[in-house]
Amino acid sequence: MAGSVYGERFRVMTWGESHGKGIGVVVDGCPAGLSLEEADIQALLDRRRPGQSRFTTQRDEADAVEILSGVFEGRTTGTPISLEVRNKDQRSRDYSAIKDIYRPGHADFTYDAKYGFRDYRGGGRSSGRETIGRVAAGAIAQKLLGTLGIGVRAYTKAVGGIAVDPARFDLEKMWENRLYMPDPKAAEEAEAFLAEAMARKDSVGGVAECVITGLPAGIGEPVFDKLDACLAKAVLSIGGVKGFEVGDGFRAAKALGSENNDPFRLDKAGRAETGTNHAGGILGGISDGAPVVFRAAIKPTPSIASVQQTVTRDGKEQELEIKGRHDPIIVPRAVVVVEAMAALTVADLLLTGMMSRMEWVHKIYGGPYEDRDGK
Amino acid sequence: MAGSVYGERFRVMTWGESHGKGIGVVVDGCPAGLSLEEADIQALLDRRRPGQSRFTTQRDEADAVEILSGVFEGRTTGTPISLEVRNKDQRSRDYSAIKDIYRPGHADFTYDAKYGFRDYRGGGRSSGRETIGRVAAGAIAQKLLGTLGIGVRAYTKAVGGIAVDPARFDLEKMWENRLYMPDPKAAEEAEAFLAEAMARKDSVGGVAECVITGLPAGIGEPVFDKLDACLAKAVLSIGGVKGFEVGDGFRAAKALGSENNDPFRLDKAGRAETGTNHAGGILGGISDGAPVVFRAAIKPTPSIASVQQTVTRDGKEQELEIKGRHDPIIVPRAVVVVEAMAALTVADLLLTGMMSRMEWVHKIYGGPYEDRDGK
Amino acid sequence: MAGSVYGERFRVMTWGESHGKGIGVVVDGCPAGLSLEEADIQALLDRRRPGQSRFTTQRDEADAVEILSGVFEGRTTGTPISLEVRNKDQRSRDYSAIKDIYRPGHADFTYDAKYGFRDYRGGGRSSGRETIGRVAAGAIAQKLLGTLGIGVRAYTKAVGGIAVDPARFDLEKMWENRLYMPDPKAAEEAEAFLAEAMARKDSVGGVAECVITGLPAGIGEPVFDKLDACLAKAVLSIGGVKGFEVGDGFRAAKALGSENNDPFRLDKAGRAETGTNHAGGILGGISDGAPVVFRAAIKPTPSIASVQQTVTRDGKEQELEIKGRHDPIIVPRAVVVVEAMAALTVADLLLTGMMSRMEWVHKIYGGPYEDRDGK
Amino acid sequence: MAGSVYGERFRVMTWGESHGKGIGVVVDGCPAGLSLEEADIQALLDRRRPGQSRFTTQRDEADAVEILSGVFEGRTTGTPISLEVRNKDQRSRDYSAIKDIYRPGHADFTYDAKYGFRDYRGGGRSSGRETIGRVAAGAIAQKLLGTLGIGVRAYTKAVGGIAVDPARFDLEKMWENRLYMPDPKAAEEAEAFLAEAMARKDSVGGVAECVITGLPAGIGEPVFDKLDACLAKAVLSIGGVKGFEVGDGFRAAKALGSENNDPFRLDKAGRAETGTNHAGGILGGISDGAPVVFRAAIKPTPSIASVQQTVTRDGKEQELEIKGRHDPIIVPRAVVVVEAMAALTVADLLLTGMMSRMEWVHKIYGGPYEDRDGK
Repeated sequence: MAGSVYGERFRVMTWGESHGKGIGVVVDGCPAGLSLEEADIQALLDRRRPGQSRFTTQRDEADAVEILSGVFEGRTTGTPISLEVRNKDQRSRDYSAIKDIYRPGHADFTYDAKYGFRDYRGGGRSSGRETIGRVAAGAIAQKLLGTLGIGVRAYTKAVGGIAVDPARFDLEKMWENRLYMPDPKAAEEAEAFLAEAMARKDSVGGVAECVITGLPAGIGEPVFDKLDACLAKAVLSIGGVKGFEVGDGFRAAKALGSENNDPFRLDKAGRAETGTNHAGGILGGISDGAPVVFRAAIKPTPSIASVQQTVTRDGKEQELEIKGRHDPIIVPRAVVVVEAMAALTVADLLLTGMMSRMEWVHKIYGGPYEDRDGK
Repeated sequence: MAGSVYGERFRVMTWGESHGKGIGVVVDGCPAGLSLEEADIQALLDRRRPGQSRFTTQRDEADAVEILSGVFEGRTTGTPISLEVRNKDQRSRDYSAIKDIYRPGHADFTYDAKYGFRDYRGGGRSSGRETIGRVAAGAIAQKLLGTLGIGVRAYTKAVGGIAVDPARFDLEKMWENRLYMPDPKAAEEAEAFLAEAMARKDSVGGVAECVITGLPAGIGEPVFDKLDACLAKAVLSIGGVKGFEVGDGFRAAKALGSENNDPFRLDKAGRAETGTNHAGGILGGISDGAPVVFRAAIKPTPSIASVQQTVTRDGKEQELEIKGRHDPIIVPRAVVVVEAMAALTVADLLLTGMMSRMEWVHKIYGGPYEDRDGK
Repeated sequence: MAGSVYGERFRVMTWGESHGKGIGVVVDGCPAGLSLEEADIQALLDRRRPGQSRFTTQRDEADAVEILSGVFEGRTTGTPISLEVRNKDQRSRDYSAIKDIYRPGHADFTYDAKYGFRDYRGGGRSSGRETIGRVAAGAIAQKLLGTLGIGVRAYTKAVGGIAVDPARFDLEKMWENRLYMPDPKAAEEAEAFLAEAMARKDSVGGVAECVITGLPAGIGEPVFDKLDACLAKAVLSIGGVKGFEVGDGFRAAKALGSENNDPFRLDKAGRAETGTNHAGGILGGISDGAPVVFRAAIKPTPSIASVQQTVTRDGKEQELEIKGRHDPIIVPRAVVVVEAMAALTVADLLLTGMMSRMEWVHKIYGGPYEDRDGK
Repeated sequence: MAGSVYGERFRVMTWGESHGKGIGVVVDGCPAGLSLEEADIQALLDRRRPGQSRFTTQRDEADAVEILSGVFEGRTTGTPISLEVRNKDQRSRDYSAIKDIYRPGHADFTYDAKYGFRDYRGGGRSSGRETIGRVAAGAIAQKLLGTLGIGVRAYTKAVGGIAVDPARFDLEKMWENRLYMPDPKAAEEAEAFLAEAMARKDSVGGVAECVITGLPAGIGEPVFDKLDACLAKAVLSIGGVKGFEVGDGFRAAKALGSENNDPFRLDKAGRAETGTNHAGGILGGISDGAPVVFRAAIKPTPSIASVQQTVTRDGKEQELEIKGRHDPIIVPRAVVVVEAMAALTVADLLLTGMMSRMEWVHKIYGGPYEDRDGK
């Protein structure tokens, strides 16, 4: 495997470069019989699209998705679903300025080190446009999860040092500001902070938080494919993410056992109802039925307009001044990608979980024996 | 896959329960020709063994490893290496106290939710003893990496709120205290803090840090199998880990771009030499040649002696008082597991990386053409 | 992957060399709740054991299997099942005669070409003893399939040119002769033919046939993971197998479409009832409910006592006379291995098939919506 | 996995239905630096294209391929290569005749049994058009193998009972007849035989043979991923293939050991030079350096114009008369697909083989030690 495949059962393969002919993804393993149309996917793609506010890049692309296979008469057929977004903004710019120089904080040098050369146009495969494939596939996973009453929602938890105040938290308010922060006051402060950074030709980092609700207990595999381990990989695979934590995360490292253990109760549906949820809905790598809560630390946009020290391809030191407009923050456009990756991960493990009991195998296939094993 | 397989090329499958007949691992994909003997593996197993200090459990097992296959005349043959540790401490205790009750912070409930029932003896598969398989396999990966000059070293970075002081950091000192802290003064304070927690029948969390040195630039696959994403999964798959960060991690979320970007330079070997290393040796998911630095947040031991609220298998609320002695902290025994998981991850991606250039394919297989592609 | 892993969901990893410490297998992905004990596995291992007749080698080993994990109170727990057979016959023989010479028809040269050296004791990993791991894991798969009413049975179809006569076919008779031929008259002739070959220091080939009954329609994945494609790989992976055919196989290549198409009917259970079954129970790579029938062509034992031409490790031509007694035919001992591989393949695809419809996902997990997709 | 992914390192995912918007494939894992342009792929696609003779269907499509990603300035970049062929022939025909009826010998019933419903237009995913993705990806694999001097060539070995006469075999002659038979006389007879079958509204089967030359010794993994096992799966995964054999195949089952063993010799390059090559270039599942030779048995086209017995979706018996023109034989169009699958398999195992020795790991990555392991 060379890194562009994700998932074992609900499996996706993404492709495409920033300034190539297009970006796409193929989904193999979506069960047959799910209602699906292009609008389901377009809705999420529109959320990651640039050009929506003064804080996002000005590249104006429709990013219109096309379903090329795997859907017949409005439903998935069980065969691969190919999704494609053609690049419209391929005009042959002048890349001579960055062709032979390594931008700090970018993958320019590491791609050269790995492959011997690279597609330098707009970052090539390492561009943020790569996430179109993730979001498109994630939209299908979210549709699937929705039919089971499972919701996946991510939002901006913090911009630099400015965090959502739990006392003011209101999820619906995230749609009312361009930063997707569920706290209008924090959003306002964050916008001011961002404007200031932009004025100084600088960029800022932040934190995205994601909550998965309605997940049955029992999802995730023991040992290596724990639910939180898989989510960690999913999230760290997004460009710019430098940290992951579930439940109390790094705060748990400072807590006492008597503080960190959630007193354990079950609701009527047989799901954990801990109230405190320090564990973040996962025990031993397996969901306990409480909401799954995790966070991603995202670094400041590496493309900044101020002068930076770097080297050229042949090792000469040189100053670099990056031209053009760039997002001063990655987080607001990343939240929909975090949702997509979480949905892909959960859908994959949910399908896997179907095979965990003989009793469920018999539920699907029946069998001739009254006195079956596994009951 | 049901979760007990790790790696794609350097692939391991672990097995075993806390109170079953033994614990083991099979490694498929170790290249032929690596010197290997049981002592290489035993040395690391001894570091994770309990019964070494008053802060670790009193179960006294030799945990002697046996190599059952894949090694001939002192070298690996390229075929699967089976490693096994027989459990000596299988005496039939009385588990009636925990058989039908869910211990807070443990996987008792979630295993039942997933499989319908569980091996309740000593935590079964979710016990910390499961990590014997990881450490045994990791020892082989570390031996392999060592022949390339790649070192993997983890240590205790913090115990509760007591962290290693960078000014006092001395890696060799980690061997001089039972907490594996590379700062004698912090270790002393931490021991006092731990003793106090134990006296109160409580436990504490902490942070492990790991540094990988000598890694060539170019390791890690773009998009989903980024080096840091794979490390995140590796580390979160260890029981009790609640967070992961690489380089500046969550601090990067509060930084400005001008602070977070590492000014870029190359050393004579063509590796990144950033000095600052905010990125933690990884750009775009691919190693840049600088040391790879990451941290794991580890929760306090969930088994505490004080009274806790929980429910029984049939949903009745009940108070629970866990008997027996338990480690008051997981971190010191986890550091060798973190090393093992890091080594397995790096070995796997290093082998994958061999296939990234046509020029390297030709280096192995030759070919009849003077004017080959890929040069 | 380095070749010792089989299956995607019902996944096994085998290990062990002919004259190492033992042979074993770990099974990851067996659903929880299947009744299992060592006797289930031993029964099949005893069928492949040598030393049972004058046509099989004289190595007398009990090949007693031990279950080391994954079973609790008589049922599988959903965690990995480790099975092990210790080698008893490890006495240090003198291998100098074959250490530096390549036996014709064996893997001696190819292992050296691949790995640079090899464990030459008794064939090492390429020995027929490797199949112990397959049969042990296959026994679990067969137990699983049995609870669904699916049967897998292989037998000797032909020895050299002597084939079972369809008119005399009686499956139960296979147990009455040491060749496992379901036709007493053919078995008698075959034994005479074999005795003659042995007298001439020669060996013979043959054909194994396998029938899978009770398989529901719908098993197998389209395109690359077709049921027959997976069976072909399963069967060709057994040492000595040189050909595979399903249904009419190579005869279909000589047939007309009007002869080869099965007139199509359905029985009351909704399974194909073609009568003719030229297709062998598979259409488009997916089971149609009729019995699945396939055959394996197996070469003569390569170890023969007559003088052969070959070369030494350093390329010198040399005559070779192989000492010791060897089976003059592989087929009778291979039939249980063919069964095992078929059972592993079917169990794997059966589990995969559970995920093919949204309706089945909802059957397991329920969901809050009256009007669900996929119905 | 749901069946549309092939390969572990050189990994492809195909997509598309007969009458959907298009057919395509994404290749992940092609090493960087391979020269590649659309013409390389188009050349092979043109060989599988229909409408080339009176023996192939009249659907006239250009099947023009487009490279959408992964190639920059004429060379592969190491990132996924997306290939796409848009369907031109999507006109909305009247499918009411086959919508609710199961065509004998087709996958209509089995798709319904698996997924609950199907895309019935032109066979949907089970159509022969699915092979476009295989051939397109295979063209890249063949280009890669070509740079190493490895050739893959398939041709028609037999049409019904009319086989190529070894005495007249001339590979170059295959291009001179529409059946791709390397024997002009056999081709002439076969054409007459075919014409006769067509006149009787019938179809015929045949055999394809493939030879791989220049393959180094040592390719293929022991136990489950043997070279011949992987080729068997590759070939059986092609629609209509009912049998596979390598080397002497089913003839080996009738041979004596003294006849079947190849006297062993090595040429100057260290490859097996057996002359007889009964083994077909593979011993113990690993290439020995001699040409790899295998055959595929292909059934007659199931779509025949004569009246057939079958059932409708709701189980009613009905007579079916298939309209339209169909190829009376699959073999000539399948040979390029066999080549493609063989090339994909060999490329995958060739990349895997790079990781089999520590000495080769060091050859790529170097290392600080004079006295390295693995030498």
